[in-house]
Amino acid sequence: MQDPVYKLIELTGTSTTSIEDAVDKAIQRAHQTLKNLSWFQVVETRGSITEGKVRQWQVTVKVGFTVDNTAATSA
Amino acid sequence: MQDPVYKLIELTGTSTTSIEDAVDKAIQRAHQTLKNLSWFQVVETRGSITEGKVRQWQVTVKVGFTVDNTAATSA
Amino acid sequence: MQDPVYKLIELTGTSTTSIEDAVDKAIQRAHQTLKNLSWFQVVETRGSITEGKVRQWQVTVKVGFTVDNTAATSA
Amino acid sequence: MQDPVYKLIELTGTSTTSIEDAVDKAIQRAHQTLKNLSWFQVVETRGSITEGKVRQWQVTVKVGFTVDNTAATSA
Amino acid sequence: MQDPVYKLIELTGTSTTSIEDAVDKAIQRAHQTLKNLSWFQVVETRGSITEGKVRQWQVTVKVGFTVDNTAATSA
Amino acid sequence: MQDPVYKLIELTGTSTTSIEDAVDKAIQRAHQTLKNLSWFQVVETRGSITEGKVRQWQVTVKVGFTVDNTAATSA
Amino acid sequence: MQDPVYKLIELTGTSTTSIEDAVDKAIQRAHQTLKNLSWFQVVETRGSITEGKVRQWQVTVKVGFTVDNTAATSA
Amino acid sequence: MQDPVYKLIELTGTSTTSIEDAVDKAIQRAHQTLKNLSWFQVVETRGSITEGKVRQWQVTVKVGFTVDNTAATSA
Amino acid sequence: MQDPVYKLIELTGTSTTSIEDAVDKAIQRAHQTLKNLSWFQVVETRGSITEGKVRQWQVTVKVGFTVDNTAATSA
Amino acid sequence: MQDPVYKLIELTGTSTTSIEDAVDKAIQRAHQTLKNLSWFQVVETRGSITEGKVRQWQVTVKVGFTVDNTAATSA
Amino acid sequence: MQDPVYKLIELTGTSTTSIEDAVDKAIQRAHQTLKNLSWFQVVETRGSITEGKVRQWQVTVKVGFTVDNTAATSA
Amino acid sequence: MQDPVYKLIELTGTSTTSIEDAVDKAIQRAHQTLKNLSWFQVVETRGSITEGKVRQWQVTVKVGFTVDNTAATSA
Repeated sequence: MQDPVYKLIELTGTSTTSIEDAVDKAIQRAHQTLKNLSWFQVVETRGSITEGKVRQWQVTVKVGFTVDNTAATSA
Repeated sequence: MQDPVYKLIELTGTSTTSIEDAVDKAIQRAHQTLKNLSWFQVVETRGSITEGKVRQWQVTVKVGFTVDNTAATSA
Repeated sequence: MQDPVYKLIELTGTSTTSIEDAVDKAIQRAHQTLKNLSWFQVVETRGSITEGKVRQWQVTVKVGFTVDNTAATSA
Repeated sequence: MQDPVYKLIELTGTSTTSIEDAVDKAIQRAHQTLKNLSWFQVVETRGSITEGKVRQWQVTVKVGFTVDNTAATSA
Repeated sequence: MQDPVYKLIELTGTSTTSIEDAVDKAIQRAHQTLKNLSWFQVVETRGSITEGKVRQWQVTVKVGFTVDNTAATSA
Repeated sequence: MQDPVYKLIELTGTSTTSIEDAVDKAIQRAHQTLKNLSWFQVVETRGSITEGKVRQWQVTVKVGFTVDNTAATSA
Repeated sequence: MQDPVYKLIELTGTSTTSIEDAVDKAIQRAHQTLKNLSWFQVVETRGSITEGKVRQWQVTVKVGFTVDNTAATSA
Repeated sequence: MQDPVYKLIELTGTSTTSIEDAVDKAIQRAHQTLKNLSWFQVVETRGSITEGKVRQWQVTVKVGFTVDNTAATSA
Repeated sequence: MQDPVYKLIELTGTSTTSIEDAVDKAIQRAHQTLKNLSWFQVVETRGSITEGKVRQWQVTVKVGFTVDNTAATSA
Repeated sequence: MQDPVYKLIELTGTSTTSIEDAVDKAIQRAHQTLKNLSWFQVVETRGSITEGKVRQWQVTVKVGFTVDNTAATSA
Repeated sequence: MQDPVYKLIELTGTSTTSIEDAVDKAIQRAHQTLKNLSWFQVVETRGSITEGKVRQWQVTVKVGFTVDNTAATSA
Repeated sequence: MQDPVYKLIELTGTSTTSIEDAVDKAIQRAHQTLKNLSWFQVVETRGSITEGKVRQWQVTVKVGFTVDNTAATSA
């Protein structure tokens, strides 16, 4: 197909260690059901605090992937 | 699972009565197929007008929910 | 149903010719599996360049459609 | 006319009771002189405070209406 | 007058063919009653969909024009 | 004082019933220690969900108040 | 009237001397036809350059004014 | 301390003469109780109008200052 | 208390090593005087450069915490 | 080189015919001196008006290109 | 050339006296090497503070200028 | 020179390991030709994905540096 179409979904990954790890977690989870993930963009970085320390990094990403002709863009 | 992953979807609820009711309608509808809805954020508040009165409130929300290991992040 | 609920999905259409064609491509692709598409909004217009010419227009759109009672808002 | 043109004006409605009432007030007032109001979008929600209570809700909306061929888009 | 003042109005032009045509339609319509239009800025590009095709492009523009001393900035 | 100075603080009020009630709660709480609250602006509207219903509205507001000469702008 | 309604218009004032003067120019001009101007907000500050010097400050403001019951919110 | 921490507060200064003077007023007032102010950023420029003239410039600034070890980041 | 109120403050943490460390520094410092910190959101990531290397990461966060009934929302 | 670095420049292309043509003009011009242009993003779409018609489309794009080791990132 | 191309660069001018002077300084400096500066837009207004007074205004502007056929758009 | 002028350029650094490393890469590259880099600001964080893992972090930064009197602000 000459003109591919991509779909973007929005995920929030979490991690106790780093921003990068939270992004990795989100992408790994999406990869279990979507095999053609192509790119991501960080939308927001938040987190929760316990006793004066960062307990959990929460990073929201938009993830883009190609929609091929057999897989439906189910809503 | 120690590091949960969330997915966000975007819905527009409508109501003839109030902003809160439009949000409720969107969440109730999503709950029919997604049982683990966790939080929402209002993205936009619009509406249509008929004869100088608000006919319909249209409130767009992002709704977040946990993605467990058995349910797929189908696109 | 008196108070309809809509879902919005985000797609990137591509085209070698124009912005309008890229939007058309994204909507045609979504229409293969979603029959009740209602409106769209252009979110971003980007593209790739080869040898000093636009090779591909990449236009990201949000597409809204009614969620009826039988079709699930599957995530 | 096949390709209608709309004009948008910006109004701030006020109310002592609710956000919805402030929007209604703005639209009712505009309707006194503009009979073809079609849609609105909430732009900003502010208010004034007296003795620790909300005294007045101030909601700014953009209101769109069709410009027909006989009515001028007077500035 | 050494220091001119401009007014900006917001219009949504529509077209079944292209973004450019929708902008043209909005400007042509404004020109019927405002003869000194000077510049425009695209604010938003949306559209409606029918049966998987773009039915109508809806492009919102801000249009600026000089306010001379005889013409009032009527609200 | 001819040229007053205002300070703005950011609060998130919560309510199980409505957006307006959440704003009221935030302002009432601030009024316990700040007697000269003057205006507010809604910054964000979020909420939590339990079993497909809105459990809690969470509305973030900026609240402005006059800083007089005796009260310090303590940080 | 207990719940006043305001209208906002957008103007660009110009000046060869300062930002403040450009805002003053826009408001003075609007005051020729609108007697109840109440507040303004600076939206954008631009300018033109001639031979390495600022030739003209161009400051765009939104100006709000009360809409009374006799004056129409003509579009 | 090798890695200093700063706090930002938001103030609105007012002036009948200029934007710069309104900023100065806000900073002078904050300096009465906070001795280590370091930088500021203009967030918003508004004002009130009386009889077609700017009566008061209202400039909102974020002001940053170092939080030393003895002074508390009291809320 | 059924409807808690939260306050948000804005801090800039700094670090010579990483973004995460700068956030940690800001939260640790706030924790010295505020014991009920709950969540944070990254607002801006900047830094200073010395001899072609990042010398200091400067990360601005909004930090939210519950305001209980005995602690005042002092300004 | 395993970790390429890109530079982005901002250009405004103009055209009497279309948005796409204005983007093409900007990219063709940049290509005269920069041979490795890679991608672009539309930042703003404006234009000038003469006698009720669009006289010139003015489209601002950010253009990205790889910075190789021999070519300097001259400022 | 019928369809000119412009380039935009971003500069921060500084001044101890006013916002306008900081913009002038940035433009004068750019004019030393770029003779065809055409327009500017204020992007951000910040400053530094010493002993409770504004020590330096720091105003960031985007400056546009025509790219002629002999001068290269060097990166 | 009492009132320095700064220039800002926009770069995208890439890295297979972390966000911080991508920023370092961009700054090191710019330092090869620009010796007076002063500060940076992260504008966007994106990346590419291969087989469900982050393959490349792509971080766009604005980098500021002093423009001295001998070095030209070449465009």
